[in-house]
Amino acid sequence: MYILIELVGIFFFAVAGSLMAARRGFDILGSAFLGGVCGLGGGVVRDLILNESPATFEHPIYFVPPVLAALCVYAFTPAVQKLHRLVQLFDAAGLGLFCVTGTMKALEHQFNPVTAVLLGVITSVGGGLMRDVISNVTPDLFNPRDIYALAAMVGSGLTVIAWHAGFMSVGLGAGIAGLAFLIRVLSLRFGWSVPLAAGHWHRAKQNPPAPDGPQRHF
Amino acid sequence: MYILIELVGIFFFAVAGSLMAARRGFDILGSAFLGGVCGLGGGVVRDLILNESPATFEHPIYFVPPVLAALCVYAFTPAVQKLHRLVQLFDAAGLGLFCVTGTMKALEHQFNPVTAVLLGVITSVGGGLMRDVISNVTPDLFNPRDIYALAAMVGSGLTVIAWHAGFMSVGLGAGIAGLAFLIRVLSLRFGWSVPLAAGHWHRAKQNPPAPDGPQRHF
Amino acid sequence: MYILIELVGIFFFAVAGSLMAARRGFDILGSAFLGGVCGLGGGVVRDLILNESPATFEHPIYFVPPVLAALCVYAFTPAVQKLHRLVQLFDAAGLGLFCVTGTMKALEHQFNPVTAVLLGVITSVGGGLMRDVISNVTPDLFNPRDIYALAAMVGSGLTVIAWHAGFMSVGLGAGIAGLAFLIRVLSLRFGWSVPLAAGHWHRAKQNPPAPDGPQRHF
Repeated sequence: MYILIELVGIFFFAVAGSLMAARRGFDILGSAFLGGVCGLGGGVVRDLILNESPATFEHPIYFVPPVLAALCVYAFTPAVQKLHRLVQLFDAAGLGLFCVTGTMKALEHQFNPVTAVLLGVITSVGGGLMRDVISNVTPDLFNPRDIYALAAMVGSGLTVIAWHAGFMSVGLGAGIAGLAFLIRVLSLRFGWSVPLAAGHWHRAKQNPPAPDGPQRHF
Repeated sequence: MYILIELVGIFFFAVAGSLMAARRGFDILGSAFLGGVCGLGGGVVRDLILNESPATFEHPIYFVPPVLAALCVYAFTPAVQKLHRLVQLFDAAGLGLFCVTGTMKALEHQFNPVTAVLLGVITSVGGGLMRDVISNVTPDLFNPRDIYALAAMVGSGLTVIAWHAGFMSVGLGAGIAGLAFLIRVLSLRFGWSVPLAAGHWHRAKQNPPAPDGPQRHF
Repeated sequence: MYILIELVGIFFFAVAGSLMAARRGFDILGSAFLGGVCGLGGGVVRDLILNESPATFEHPIYFVPPVLAALCVYAFTPAVQKLHRLVQLFDAAGLGLFCVTGTMKALEHQFNPVTAVLLGVITSVGGGLMRDVISNVTPDLFNPRDIYALAAMVGSGLTVIAWHAGFMSVGLGAGIAGLAFLIRVLSLRFGWSVPLAAGHWHRAKQNPPAPDGPQRHF
């Protein structure tokens, strides 16, 4: 059951990675690789921090979702203009699932609540961060026009509370994941955001967002 | 005592990370995250190489400096033109402290002198490198117009010599850290540098440095 | 013997890293650092995944090739126009050797064939990926105009087959490494490639590749 949920989350992130590869004009192997990094990267970093051999490399089944994602994106490439939005949508789905499963794994390792929340956030934002960094674009995580890390924090925080209160269940976990997903997606739709790093700079002075569409740098 | 010095070094690097977030127009959560990566990244990499669970994730106190740094930068944002210089100044302070503490930790693990120097350098340049890489700017480490890695090497080298000679003390460590800091800052002020990677290219032909100020890529 | 082959592979990758440093206008310490990351990065990641202390940091001899490479590039800097091609050539030589040695190491750790191939590919593409990411350029791995990951996959796959069939030898390993090298180099020469991530986009519509030559971003 746990493995199944994890595989679904990996698939969502892998699709986001493969869509990013399409957006940047990479080839299909780069697509599978970027999907793999995006889907598995957060979990690998979490396992390295927990000082255990990454589960990913024990069971070949973990590599099925990235391959599947690359094939799906190859078969059903969306129109160029929709690519950035679709990356964000699948990324949000993965974010929701991973902030719950990442936090659960940290709690099972007896970490204190603060660290458990942080590990949950790292698991859920790590894959997307790696995808953006190795694609050579500024990470979505830092985009000041919507909510990203906060959605993961809410999901991880609620997971810690539910776990310590003793009523964590699959249904509740799914609900928390859905809530984190919703916060992220609604923030994209309605432009919710948190304050800028620099307190007294006016938002109004910021440049408009870069236009969507494929960026090709070769 | 050791922990206190480490926390001060983390704070310096975290301020450098949060100032970079301000320079790039990120939001305040991105600022705390980037401060955390910059302040804790070098130490986490060192601990992974030493094959032990990163100390950072055992004690939640390590996460206080990044949060504090993000709040400080939010409250006292400097003028845009000063941001790059301030990033470099706080980065230099962290560099000085970390090349001493990183080398000490490697020496305590019985590493040979060469590896101890290298681990010290990795600890002290790793955080800043990660900050620049995930912010999608060319790392300061590679800037050919000033001295960066050499300052860390001098600090780490002197730490190894003092340790093996048997007269390492808190005062001497602080002195070495101060020296590394000074080398870095004076090289920025007076344009000290080491030769280019490509031997026979003339420096005079290089382009001028990019103007400072916030770069916004969204 | 095994160590010697590994050192040769590290040297090839380190030259590729130092040439990239020359291309980007970095200084000679940045050149040694980038050579070290490129030469040793893939192996360190593989060892972290295998959950053992990276061999690199046990024996200082592993740091000799990057220093040597930086000195060679300093002494014999090629003309600017040839830099990108030379980076790719040395990178291909390292790729060939590492996909064999990386896969062998995974097989010695009793990994299943699929994971062994993947670890071999990660070892052989990891260093070049890190080099490109920290130099702030789009990784060569993703370039849709030639074959990169596929060459490593062929090399790793043949290594797994030869190992399980029981006739792996130094000569055969060298042959497989040479084959992977050839595939990569011929794909560069003749423009072999795999399909794009996005199935129905026409290749003809892609922008021309960026002109070679040093990119200076400071």
